[in-house]
Amino acid sequence: MGSGLGRNGDQLVSALLPRAEFIEALQRAGAERYHDKHPFHRRMHAGALSPVELRRWVVNRYYYQTRIPIKDALILSKTEDVEFRRRWMHRIFDHDGRPDETGKMTDEGGLAQWQRLAQAVGCDLEEVKSLRSVLPGVRFACDAYVDLVRQRSLLEAVASSLTESFAHELMSRRIEAWLAHYTWVEPHALDYFRTRVVRARRDSLEAVEYVVAEARTREQQEACVAALVRKCEILWALLDAVEAAGREPPVATID
Amino acid sequence: MGSGLGRNGDQLVSALLPRAEFIEALQRAGAERYHDKHPFHRRMHAGALSPVELRRWVVNRYYYQTRIPIKDALILSKTEDVEFRRRWMHRIFDHDGRPDETGKMTDEGGLAQWQRLAQAVGCDLEEVKSLRSVLPGVRFACDAYVDLVRQRSLLEAVASSLTESFAHELMSRRIEAWLAHYTWVEPHALDYFRTRVVRARRDSLEAVEYVVAEARTREQQEACVAALVRKCEILWALLDAVEAAGREPPVATID
Repeated sequence: MGSGLGRNGDQLVSALLPRAEFIEALQRAGAERYHDKHPFHRRMHAGALSPVELRRWVVNRYYYQTRIPIKDALILSKTEDVEFRRRWMHRIFDHDGRPDETGKMTDEGGLAQWQRLAQAVGCDLEEVKSLRSVLPGVRFACDAYVDLVRQRSLLEAVASSLTESFAHELMSRRIEAWLAHYTWVEPHALDYFRTRVVRARRDSLEAVEYVVAEARTREQQEACVAALVRKCEILWALLDAVEAAGREPPVATID
Repeated sequence: MGSGLGRNGDQLVSALLPRAEFIEALQRAGAERYHDKHPFHRRMHAGALSPVELRRWVVNRYYYQTRIPIKDALILSKTEDVEFRRRWMHRIFDHDGRPDETGKMTDEGGLAQWQRLAQAVGCDLEEVKSLRSVLPGVRFACDAYVDLVRQRSLLEAVASSLTESFAHELMSRRIEAWLAHYTWVEPHALDYFRTRVVRARRDSLEAVEYVVAEARTREQQEACVAALVRKCEILWALLDAVEAAGREPPVATID
């Protein structure tokens, strides 16, 4: 873990960080590494992606989306705390959709929204759902995230979700960028991003409160920061894989 | 797995069993080993348990109850099928309670019902919730169930839940027996059993349909039967541990 939190590289400091400093350490670690600064996202938001690249991202990121309810179920399985489970359960519904008592859907859920996005950018829905076009590096990165959640403590698993603290800003910028640059995409197809602006903020606030309350030693605080750093690396690796699949000729000649 | 399903001990038969025969094999394996026939349950239903024994069972079985949402979250984490997750989610709410959108509880849940049962038989609620009186053999058996679900396939995990096929009859008999023999227990405290009569039947029908549809080889069918057998052994071991903790003098002298 090293002295990741030490302000002066002082290896001897191991006292529990006060709340504000711990939150700042998480914030700093995440902000430095969050994938909003990845070249692929920069090009996306500058309107520089071709339709083929946009589709490639949508198809591959869908694999990440399908992992979310799985990792949230693993998080549920790691606790004995009924209250925690009740608070966390909505995350599965947020992606799978929420049926009422009769089975009727009252919320389509994030996966269905992403499928609409995929169709709007011109993907074949069945191909997207089959996951067969998912790039090896994307599959590896997303599965590594599920493994992280499976293997580490509940505290670290929750800390790894704190990338959502940065998601709502990214989503807001993304909506603006898509409406400005990718005018061929039907605006209603951006509902997933719109929904996440609100939910990512709510979810990250919940998760920060949990992590701050439950990290009771400096070692645990450092483990939380390390889990968040690893999660940032995983999100970055996902975009590396998409980027490495190649730029499209029209964009390559502009560069 | 052996020739558990072979009618004549014929080791060579390995064709997929037709639906009815597979269901019958599950039914037979479960009925033979289900813990309704355990001496402790027989004494319970005959009205032969002392208040101390009843309390001991309630406190220890509570540990099992607390494992249920954990194993159901593990089951959710084992599938990529959104429909399956949507159908299975209610099982967690059934035990944890179901909050509406505002967080207000619309269903108290099985754990809260069991806590009311514990209080009605004279247990100290905080001691029950702390789990500190749980017997070693009970802890071992229940943790083994969670491990089984964690380690085996989704199909086997679901098959292990098929003990519920037998639960509604046991619950019905239990309600009658308690009302007849343990008249000092407030009838409203038996709500957990009443709720399970309905839910266990519904859940087991769901699970049977899943297992029948997904067991596509004879080997998988045998693995399902084996998982159900192991689950029966676990439930039996739980009662062995409670039984082994000793009978109370008043009952011992009657015997």
